[in-house]
Formats: sequence, structure tokens, C-alpha cells
Amino acid sequence: MPSYTAPTKDMQFVLHDLLKISQSDIPGYSELEADFTAAILEEAGKITSEVLAPLNVVGDTEGCVLENGVVRTPTGFQEAFDQVRDGGWTALDMPEDFGGQGLPYVMGTAVGEMFSSANQAFTMYQGLTHGAASAILAHGSDDQKAAYLPKMVSCEWTGTMNLTEPHCGTDLGLMRTKAVPQDDGSYKISGQKIFISAGEHEMSSNIIHLVLAKIPGGPDGIKGVSLFIVPKFILNDDGTPGARNGVSCGKIEEKMGIHGNSTCVMNYDEATGYLLGEAHKGMRAMFTMMNEARLGVGMQGLAQAEAAYQNAVIYAKDRLQGRAVTGVENPDGPADPLIVHPDIRRNLMDQKSFIEGARAFMLWGAMMIDQSHRQNDKAADGLISLLTPVIKGFLTDQGYDMTVQAQQVYGGHGYIEEWGMSQFTRDARIAMIYEGANGVQALDLVGRKLAADGGKHVMAFFELVKNFIKDNDGNEALKQDFLNPLKAASKDLQAAGMYFMQNGMKNPNHALSGSYDFMHLFGHVCLGLMWAQMAKAATEALDAGASDTSFYETKIATGRYYMARRLPATAMHLARINSGADTVMALDAANF
Amino acid sequence: MPSYTAPTKDMQFVLHDLLKISQSDIPGYSELEADFTAAILEEAGKITSEVLAPLNVVGDTEGCVLENGVVRTPTGFQEAFDQVRDGGWTALDMPEDFGGQGLPYVMGTAVGEMFSSANQAFTMYQGLTHGAASAILAHGSDDQKAAYLPKMVSCEWTGTMNLTEPHCGTDLGLMRTKAVPQDDGSYKISGQKIFISAGEHEMSSNIIHLVLAKIPGGPDGIKGVSLFIVPKFILNDDGTPGARNGVSCGKIEEKMGIHGNSTCVMNYDEATGYLLGEAHKGMRAMFTMMNEARLGVGMQGLAQAEAAYQNAVIYAKDRLQGRAVTGVENPDGPADPLIVHPDIRRNLMDQKSFIEGARAFMLWGAMMIDQSHRQNDKAADGLISLLTPVIKGFLTDQGYDMTVQAQQVYGGHGYIEEWGMSQFTRDARIAMIYEGANGVQALDLVGRKLAADGGKHVMAFFELVKNFIKDNDGNEALKQDFLNPLKAASKDLQAAGMYFMQNGMKNPNHALSGSYDFMHLFGHVCLGLMWAQMAKAATEALDAGASDTSFYETKIATGRYYMARRLPATAMHLARINSGADTVMALDAANF
Repeated sequence: MPSYTAPTKDMQFVLHDLLKISQSDIPGYSELEADFTAAILEEAGKITSEVLAPLNVVGDTEGCVLENGVVRTPTGFQEAFDQVRDGGWTALDMPEDFGGQGLPYVMGTAVGEMFSSANQAFTMYQGLTHGAASAILAHGSDDQKAAYLPKMVSCEWTGTMNLTEPHCGTDLGLMRTKAVPQDDGSYKISGQKIFISAGEHEMSSNIIHLVLAKIPGGPDGIKGVSLFIVPKFILNDDGTPGARNGVSCGKIEEKMGIHGNSTCVMNYDEATGYLLGEAHKGMRAMFTMMNEARLGVGMQGLAQAEAAYQNAVIYAKDRLQGRAVTGVENPDGPADPLIVHPDIRRNLMDQKSFIEGARAFMLWGAMMIDQSHRQNDKAADGLISLLTPVIKGFLTDQGYDMTVQAQQVYGGHGYIEEWGMSQFTRDARIAMIYEGANGVQALDLVGRKLAADGGKHVMAFFELVKNFIKDNDGNEALKQDFLNPLKAASKDLQAAGMYFMQNGMKNPNHALSGSYDFMHLFGHVCLGLMWAQMAKAATEALDAGASDTSFYETKIATGRYYMARRLPATAMHLARINSGADTVMALDAANF
Repeated sequence: MPSYTAPTKDMQFVLHDLLKISQSDIPGYSELEADFTAAILEEAGKITSEVLAPLNVVGDTEGCVLENGVVRTPTGFQEAFDQVRDGGWTALDMPEDFGGQGLPYVMGTAVGEMFSSANQAFTMYQGLTHGAASAILAHGSDDQKAAYLPKMVSCEWTGTMNLTEPHCGTDLGLMRTKAVPQDDGSYKISGQKIFISAGEHEMSSNIIHLVLAKIPGGPDGIKGVSLFIVPKFILNDDGTPGARNGVSCGKIEEKMGIHGNSTCVMNYDEATGYLLGEAHKGMRAMFTMMNEARLGVGMQGLAQAEAAYQNAVIYAKDRLQGRAVTGVENPDGPADPLIVHPDIRRNLMDQKSFIEGARAFMLWGAMMIDQSHRQNDKAADGLISLLTPVIKGFLTDQGYDMTVQAQQVYGGHGYIEEWGMSQFTRDARIAMIYEGANGVQALDLVGRKLAADGGKHVMAFFELVKNFIKDNDGNEALKQDFLNPLKAASKDLQAAGMYFMQNGMKNPNHALSGSYDFMHLFGHVCLGLMWAQMAKAATEALDAGASDTSFYETKIATGRYYMARRLPATAMHLARINSGADTVMALDAANF
């Protein structure tokens, strides 16, 4: 069975050596000294590796079962959920007013990675609750906040997001679920929603569904969509869960992975709902959840890759097979360990260099969320808004590929469920799909975010890269291996943006045919930037006489690998983008 | 539930427009007129789409069950197997002397693709039999051939390959299974073999296991391995199955996919076995099976991609979601079909251009097998030997990626087992692993095949590309879109080979660190060559006044896509290769 060890040390490196969080003027950051964050990360590491990780295979094997309207979660999930709740892990970055611990988002993100690595299906129960609570926090009335948030922050009640219907996922304007106004100000919600993660279960005493629906007589399409709070148990006047609402789970889907999470068909049959935010402005409110959820899903890509990688390394060191081509390395054994072989190294270095780069990218992104929320920093808000589809799309695509590579290290055993490597791949697969399939992320990036605010945010990104290169121009240790490749990759990204500007106006297909490649090109440049910055930070630590030289030297060596071996993908993506829409759109639909 | 329609027309294009098989002087090819091959392909298309494809999901859902030593295959498999046998489909390219139809390997390959697309797990029962029969054909005594081949050719008896043991897969020198000589010339085989596909089942009246084992006292390591025939039921003097042999299935593995195939742990307990070929020359005999099996596995990559693609296209045309960015295309519907969107097009074109290129590559490879077997053509034999790891590794990696892309077209429904897209991905995953994991293919390619016979075969490949470009130099229709990109890609491949020559001698790690990229680079050049040749063939057909202009024009347009969008990957692979081993091998094992 796979194991999981929280990468505390690497997170500390990113938080303190790279982002230097405790020196930041973001409110709440000054208390994030290395000792303090270490204590949190160590504790989170303990519960995730000792309690959640051992339940990962259990969740996959048992799945969730619907019997007589009741959903049974896998053995041990309830106890673990109680433990997570008792430890206050669900409330880390929620406001203290509602029982949270008020820590910055960056800490929630670091801890969140551990939870997702250890047990993605389990973590979704609290993750969706977090998203739903955030939407109520942002758009709810004071009464709604008071009624729902304390219980949701503690995860005594969980939450869900209800968007998709059988005939519409991405195109929510086609939605049929309706919300009929009642005399008392509430609504009667009727319709069917599908793919509702954590839609029904017994681990919490209430489930607060956030449901998109149309109020009859409202505008057509997406502009007529409103958001509603629909509790599983309608609250009594004293705030306790009361009568069962008209919402039920019709079916649990059989999925490729995340079996431990109950993915439900939810039937709303004149269920009582309460408008959240303004009527017909439901998409705006939902986007509060979705943007956060997209970052969280990007993190899942990284998190599954990390978990799979750890086990691939263990296997590569244990399994004796063949001899090193440069001479026997394990003369006392019948063969050398897999890890001596160059192609196994390539495989593992792909994973390691992706994971550490992605972790830095993710935590940098989380820091921008804090700048946006805690300092009302418009520049940070604009930049993270631009980068959100990159984090979601690039990290989940690459994260998935890395789980496939990790599985490959195991040879035939990687295909056998008993070894647990298949689960990482199967679980990671969903992250490329939900919260907006990655093609939709690419569309969001190129069709919306790139030109937002006159293209100001992407220009800011280029400035940032340019300034980093310029500021370190005299740094010979960085120049050849880091700055030059970064400059080349960034030039490819700029050229791609230029191609879109020059050709997308004439025919938007020229831009959209290259959107997916652009998302990946952008992701590589971001990771290249992270690696250049991390190499600098590691060099500075070494120069300052850090005792753990091997950690910092490994960091620099891993960065060199990324720059030499992964970053050259940018030229390929640019070539594809520059070929335009003609070959993409050439065929009549009938000729596919 | 997914459907499957055999791509008969495209196969006919490859066989007749591209390869012009009936004009070849390979013995047996002159009878392969278009009418004749069409008749075979139409019939194969019928049984695969009507009988095997509907059982694909059944096999995945039910899997195989071991009860009291008996393996139960999924509902309908036995009846379908009988039907396949009765139709003579198992014997298409086996010699007439043993009851086969004596058709060339190229026809077996075309039909084999259909079988694998329709139901990979099912097809493996006959596929492994074919491999085992080939080994007996090549290395068996006349008595052995007479005793086993007629029944195996008809699949009245099935066959297996037993290589892997729990502690060794790639490194078979570590093998522990032993074969003790008996006075009557037979051997007693004892040991445990794992991952034995079709190892035990009731669909055939006997199972002929080919088992690698060591005769005590023989040479150490791989040089002490011999190959044995171990029938499930020992033959009576009259050749009928008699006493149960000491071989049994200890367990059926729970796998990520190909659930319909029984993957067994096989226990040999003093089982009676008969030496096949020479003692201690077992690996040589086994390679007869493995080379054929590797081509067959490469084909599975293509075949799963084809099946997944067909369903992705259906969904992309059916599912209404969003509006075309260039203007509404389905004004009477609530939304436009997915296929209007450029990124969906990109996704589908990736698949289509891979599949058709891979099909041509596969069938060209099969033609070389025929040249080798039927004409003793050493050049063809050398070239297909070089290309075998490329076909296996590149086609299965890319084929898998394409099933993932096809799944992506379905959005959330792609993750739900009910829709069947997950199965294509899960089934395709194994092809990257078995018959030599793809890293081992890359090692075989770079460490062995490239330099074989003084590098003569790779030089021949380059000559072939160069001559094609030169011979068509005046063809302006081809030049810009096909010949120039092919030339550039081929130059990348040559540069990579040069890098290996110049650096691999000093340190083999410089070559082996780039082996995986080289395999993909090579694969792209092969598909680029196929597309250039197909574009030429299609142009000629149009010039000759072919009636189905839309088919040929689509072929050319699809080729343009590959050259513009897929082939640029070669430069990335070259850049990675040229970065050498330093970043790959930099870390101490402890620092992973």
C-alpha cells in the first residue's frame, strides 16, 4: 500500500526562502515565522500521513453506497472526519468571527496540498464546504452568515456546489432547474443536478447545497441564473436542523476514481431555497466559489503527483532490476536498484522538477490571493485572475501525466490495483475535468483573461519576468542555466500573445485554436520563473552558510533539469500556435 | 454505451493507395486485390462491431472470477469466442499446413486492429495463442508442431507466455522457476509466474503455456534460461488432452483495466514440461513471440485510440454546448454542437492525425514482416527490427494520450464509467507497460537497435526519407506542407543520433538519458513520413479522377494538421536529448 510523507521541508523553503512570507507587509503575514509555520505543517503532516493516507485505498476499494436514500461512506471516513474537525483543520483560513483560525490563505493552501495528497476523495468533503462557505461569506446577508457559517466553518455541516445538469455543464445558460418565489420570500426549487460531489452522506448533521436555478420570468440564458441556499434540513427558528427538505440523492455515479467521494445525482422537488446574493446575478456569486475551487483543483494536480512520486521513488530504490550501464552499483545484490538507470532518472526528475516548481507557483498564487483579500491589491488580484486558468489547467494536465509516469516506474505492478499506483492516476484524472474542463480554462485564459483591463495583467507578468532577469543579470551562477532559458521561454510566450493580437481580431479561431497550447506555454514559463527564483534563493542560502547544503544543492540541480529538459516545450507550443486555425478548422464536421 | 465501426475505408486506402500491396512481388500479395481485401475487412468489421464491441463494457464490468480453481470469463465471452473460432478469424495469417488461411501478416494486422479496437481484453485470448503458436512454429520439433499447432491455430486450445516472476520482470536473469530433467526427456517445472494473461479460463479445452525456466546446473543469469511447453492437460498418446498437469491459477489480479482478460498468478508445481528449442536458448525462442507481441501491443495503442476517437466524434457532434465564436451554426437549437469549437477541433484533429498516421506506420511495418518472412529480405528484417520498439513505445504512449483526450471531449461524462470512455483509457494504459515497459523499448532502440549491424538500418531509414523528399522535390503541392517539415524533423532525428554517437561512447548515460525522447522523436518522423507519402497518394488519386474527392481531400488536410501541429515536437525532443545526462544524473539517490 502506498505511503505519504508531508513535504514539510520543501514547503518551508517556498514559504520562507522563496516567498519570505514573514517579511511581507500583508496583514497576518508577520506572525508567520518559520517556527510557527513549521509547527502547523508538522501537525498537518501527522494527521494526513497517519490518519488520511491509510484511508485512501479503503475509499477507493469500498466507494460510497446508496441504500434506501442513505449514503454510506467508506469505513473509517466518519472517524477521520471527526478527527479533522476536532483538530480545527477545516477552519484554518476562515475568519475568526465565524470560528475559523483566521490564518492567511497561503497557509490553507500549503496544508490543503497535504490533505489532497493523502486522500483527495476524503478532502473534497471539506473542500466543497470551504467553497460554499466562501460564497456565503462573500454574498450572504448577515442573517445567512450567522445562520450557516459557524457550522460550515467547523464542518459540522458540509456544503456542495450544484451547477451541472444532464444536458448542460459548461453552457449553464441552458439550465432548466427553476426557482419559484414564495410569499415568505423563499423559493421552491425543482430540477435535477448531476455530478454533485459530497451531495449526500451522513458525516455531517446538515448539508448546505448551493444551487443555481432560474426564476421564471427572468432574463434568458446565463443572465437569468440565480444562486440559492438549499439546506438538506431546513433550519428551525433556533437555528438547529429541522424538517427534511425536498432534496434527495437519486443515484451515486460509478466513476473512474475518487470513489471515496459520493458523486450524486441530486433531485430537487419543490425544495425550499433562499436567494444568495442578488436575483439573476447567480453566476457572479458562483464565481466566488469557482475561482477558489479552480485554484484548489490545480493544487490537486500537484498533490496527486507528489503522492505518486513519493511512492515511485521508494520503489525505484527498492526494486532490484538490471545493472547500471556505467558499472555495477550494488555488488552485493543480485541486481542494481531501478534508480541507477538513466531513463528511470529522467522519469523521476520530470516528476520532481514539476512538483517543486508547481508548489512554488501554487503558493505564490495563494500569496496573491492574500494580497488581494487582505490588502485590496488590485494588481495582485488581476495577476492571480490571469493565472488561475493556468494553475488549474497546466497543473492538472501535468500532474496527471506525472502520476502516469510514476505508475510506469512500477512496470506491471503499476497496473495492479493492490499497489495503489493506479488510484493516483484515476483520482488525478478528474482534476482535468471538473471546475471547468481544461479546454474551458484555456478559453477563459485566451478569450477573456489575456485582454482583461487592456492586457494590463499579462504585461505586468512580462515585466516581472523581465525585471527578475535584469536584476540578476550579473549573477553568473544563474545566467547560463536559468536566466537565459527563462528569457527564451518568455520570448516564446510573448510571441504567442503577439500572434493572437495580430490574427485573433481578423478571426478569433486563430487565437482559440492555440488556446490550449498557450495555457501550457504559459505554465512552463511560470514554472521556469519559479525555478529561476528558487535557484537564486537556494544560492543565497548556501552563500549565507546554510547547514543543509545537500537540500539547497539538490534544489538547484532539480531546477537545472527543469530549465534544460522541460522548458524547451515552449518552442513547440509556439510553433503550434503560429500555425493558426487553418489546419484545425479545415474539415467539415461530417469528415471526422 | 460506446459503439465501434471498423475503419475499413481507411485501411483500404493504406493497403491499396499507399502500400499498393497487390502490385508487390511479395509472395501471396498478388491475390490481395482491393475486392478481396474489402471482403475480408467487411466481414471482420461485422463480427467486431456486432459481436465483440458490445461485450467490451460487459467484460470491464464483470471481469474474471476465480472460484474453486475455475476461472469464469464474462457473460458472452464463450459464445463470442466460439463464433470467432468458427469464422476462422484466429487463423488468418497462420500457415495452411496447420489449418490456417495462409494470408500475409499485413492482413492479420489490419484485422487485428479491428479486434483490438472492439474488445482488447477479449482479443488477448487469441492474441497470446497466436504468439505462442508462432514460437512453436519457429522453434518446435516436427512432433511438437504436429501435436500443438493445429489446435492452437484454430484456438481450440489457447496459449500463454510465462516470463515474469514476482521479483523480476525486465531482468529475467533473476528468474527462479526451475526445470528438472526427467529420464523420459521431459522436465518437471516448479515456480511461480505472475501477470499471465489468459492464464486460466474455460473457453478452450486446453491451454498451452510457454514457460521460461532454468535447468539446474546451467549458466547463470539470462544465459541459463530455457523455454518449455507446459500444457494444462498433458496430451494422451492420441493427442487428446489427458491428465491435469501440475499448473494452477493461484489468483486473478485486480487491474486498472482489461478486466475481461484473466491475468493470473500461475503456480507450477512439478508440472510436466517439454523443452522448446535448445536448452539455455530460451530467450532467443521467447523473442520470436516478443517481437511479434510488441508489434501487436503497438497496434493496441492505435486500436484503443481509434475506438475512443470514434465515440468522441459522435459526442462532439451530438452534444449542444455554447455557440461558435464566429457566429451561430445551429440556429434552430439551443446551442451549437461541441464540434464547432476550435479547441474541440484541436483535440479531435490530434487524435485523427495520430490514428491515421499510426495505421499507415503499422501496416507498413507488417508489410516488412512479410518481406522478411516470405522473401527472406534482410533489409526489411533489419528495418522492422529497428522500428519495432518505436511502434511499441510511441504508438502506445500516444495512443494512451489520445484516449485521454477523447475522454476529455465528454467533460464530466468522460469520468463516469457508464459512458464507457474511462475504459478505453484504463485498457490502453497496459499497452505502455507489458511486453517490455516503454522505457525498456527506448533502451532497446538506443542501446541495441540503433547500432545493430554497424548502424546500417537507421542509415537505410534516413535514405528512405531522403529519397522520398528528393524524388518529390518538384511536387509543389507537397513541398511546403509536407516535404519541408519532414526534412526538418528528419534532420532533428539525425542530429540526435549524432549526439549519441559523439557522447555515448564517453559515457553511455548521455545516450540513455535521451533514449525516451529519441523513441518519440523517431515516432514523429515515421508518422511524418507516412503523412507525406499518404498526401502524395491522395493527390495522385485525386489527379486520377477518384470519385470520393472528399475522402482524399480530408486525408490531405489531416496530414497538413499533423505536419503543422504534431511534428514540431521533434525539436523539443532534440533539445532534451542535447542537454545530455548531466541534469538527469545529478542527484544522489538519497536526494530524490
